[in-house]
Amino acid sequence: MGIEDTGSKGTAGRMIALFTDCGLDGPYTGQMKAVLLRMAPGVPVIDLFADAPAGDPRASAYLLAAYAPWFPEGTVFLCVVDPGVGGARPAVVVEADGRWYVGPGNGLFELVQRRGREMRSFTVDWRPERLSASFHGRDLFAPVAAMLARGDAPRGGPCDESAVRRPDWPDDLAEIVYVDHYGNAMTGMRAASLPGEARLAAAGRLLTRARTFGDRPPGEAFWYENSNGLAEIAVNAGRADRGLGLAVGTTVEVIA
Amino acid sequence: MGIEDTGSKGTAGRMIALFTDCGLDGPYTGQMKAVLLRMAPGVPVIDLFADAPAGDPRASAYLLAAYAPWFPEGTVFLCVVDPGVGGARPAVVVEADGRWYVGPGNGLFELVQRRGREMRSFTVDWRPERLSASFHGRDLFAPVAAMLARGDAPRGGPCDESAVRRPDWPDDLAEIVYVDHYGNAMTGMRAASLPGEARLAAAGRLLTRARTFGDRPPGEAFWYENSNGLAEIAVNAGRADRGLGLAVGTTVEVIA
Amino acid sequence: MGIEDTGSKGTAGRMIALFTDCGLDGPYTGQMKAVLLRMAPGVPVIDLFADAPAGDPRASAYLLAAYAPWFPEGTVFLCVVDPGVGGARPAVVVEADGRWYVGPGNGLFELVQRRGREMRSFTVDWRPERLSASFHGRDLFAPVAAMLARGDAPRGGPCDESAVRRPDWPDDLAEIVYVDHYGNAMTGMRAASLPGEARLAAAGRLLTRARTFGDRPPGEAFWYENSNGLAEIAVNAGRADRGLGLAVGTTVEVIA
Repeated sequence: MGIEDTGSKGTAGRMIALFTDCGLDGPYTGQMKAVLLRMAPGVPVIDLFADAPAGDPRASAYLLAAYAPWFPEGTVFLCVVDPGVGGARPAVVVEADGRWYVGPGNGLFELVQRRGREMRSFTVDWRPERLSASFHGRDLFAPVAAMLARGDAPRGGPCDESAVRRPDWPDDLAEIVYVDHYGNAMTGMRAASLPGEARLAAAGRLLTRARTFGDRPPGEAFWYENSNGLAEIAVNAGRADRGLGLAVGTTVEVIA
Repeated sequence: MGIEDTGSKGTAGRMIALFTDCGLDGPYTGQMKAVLLRMAPGVPVIDLFADAPAGDPRASAYLLAAYAPWFPEGTVFLCVVDPGVGGARPAVVVEADGRWYVGPGNGLFELVQRRGREMRSFTVDWRPERLSASFHGRDLFAPVAAMLARGDAPRGGPCDESAVRRPDWPDDLAEIVYVDHYGNAMTGMRAASLPGEARLAAAGRLLTRARTFGDRPPGEAFWYENSNGLAEIAVNAGRADRGLGLAVGTTVEVIA
Repeated sequence: MGIEDTGSKGTAGRMIALFTDCGLDGPYTGQMKAVLLRMAPGVPVIDLFADAPAGDPRASAYLLAAYAPWFPEGTVFLCVVDPGVGGARPAVVVEADGRWYVGPGNGLFELVQRRGREMRSFTVDWRPERLSASFHGRDLFAPVAAMLARGDAPRGGPCDESAVRRPDWPDDLAEIVYVDHYGNAMTGMRAASLPGEARLAAAGRLLTRARTFGDRPPGEAFWYENSNGLAEIAVNAGRADRGLGLAVGTTVEVIA
């Protein structure tokens, strides 16, 4: 997996990827981008997810850990799934395998950290002149992401691991963690963690594995390894979410 | 409020912010951006709102006036909430406190103008070679915004204030003017205009003020000052729109 | 139609326009943009459609052919409406009237090809190191679009026209092919192909032609030539989709 280097690179090679539950249409993503633009001009910004599971750092953590490693080293992930904004949760920076993650210390980086080979983490001490009570994505995380993207060394104290880590979460999550634009339902399980012949049971249905959509007749449900390595439930030429009654949080059972 | 200057600036420092009811997924925003790109290359474009209240310049006017001042001086706002496109409403440019606003003269800039300290306005005389009957955002407003963003002086005659201004609209609007991605419902009232202990009544519910989400138990409704200064109705870990039955246009009552 | 050259141009003048059914909020468009950014740095990317009719290359073909000619020559269209991904359909590059189209050879370019004056097409022989089974938009089409946008000559063999073309599709499609953010319903018919006084019958309603929205009373349904030349069904100050019961695929009858 990963971006192939078949062509020329940007001079810096840095980019900022947004992983949020903020949506794109409304004012939140735009304001964060305005901050990034002012503080790290010239650094490209990519919308990775704007519809991560709203207010659900646990489901989001499995999604982030599946999609982030595809991006090149040096990428800065600005991550905002932050239901506890304004409360006691710390603000953290994680460096894992050459990529940077900025956001709330609420478990959102748990799987990135657990799967990383080289890893450091910091609490963010920096504070803006004005910090709103409800939008740290704009006021705190975006400025810190911009500083990292332009090459500043991370400033901050050691991370209180006990506040930030979630050792009780499983290595792979047997639940739906995301429903995409087509109605495909991603689980929090890496396909590589499952036996090749595993079947998945969800919402009263038993699903076998396929390679891709066209391998099954229209209307048939199946599971497959999606393009970022997650086990995903889909229906050829149909919507798995509506057809099978799947949503974020639906339990999935592995039948080996 | 405002973007903090903790870092380096872009050479020009200019940006164009889009405030529209056009949506992002479909062809309208993309075509406007293609025009901006051709006519003002190198000027960054930010999506501020693409889901302003559709066809509702009055509600949109309170939203725009709350969010625009956060942006740096020099920002050009390309504003398209234009139900009367192709009809008699004029096309206008407003300069208020160093920011530029381009769009239909249908009241959309009323609150920006009313709250501005230094202000000028023009009617747009410039016309493109081809002007469609239904998409002045692309054919007229985007080119004018691009010209302003690249530093051209505004061209146009004096504005007929009687056609453009809306003196009968209140200073703060006691209605829901926007429902965000999370289901939070923004009113058209600046929180600073309300007594500190004010309660809000909406859809048969009486709501007290909180600082932020985490100050209330999950499921509880409240109001608070949002990150751009508006009084906003929310539910901790829930959706205020569905839970309380709120939508754009719902009346809100202030109980001091 | 087309972008007017009233101002300065970008140095290269090239842009990449995305025409997909992938949505913007989720991970697909962002990953494609990350590839474009790495392989064609500095080339601007425009989201034209992210909500083309999902899995429907036929309806999408009429939409693409209506919107693409508005863009300047040299534009590269990265097109992903690809229900047969991972199957036998070829990957193709089409050059038509100075614009480039990259995507699946499933009919998506049929109307662009049929209406083009100067035209070439190729099958894509290039393959990435890793090609996922379900996301050729990212792994195959985006790299090829980037190569074209940075000026590489197209590499590939002659196109098997019998596999790619759809001679049985009509020149104009008397169906709804797109419902926009406002609920307006675009047909696959060019307004210029219809008699001036033609009426359209759809979902049991008979609609006469108007110039634009404001020419009809609020709530009244009509059809008009939209800003890219398609016959479109709309309701002044209302939603045609919900009001009339229109969706992608609804048949429209022309009554001359």
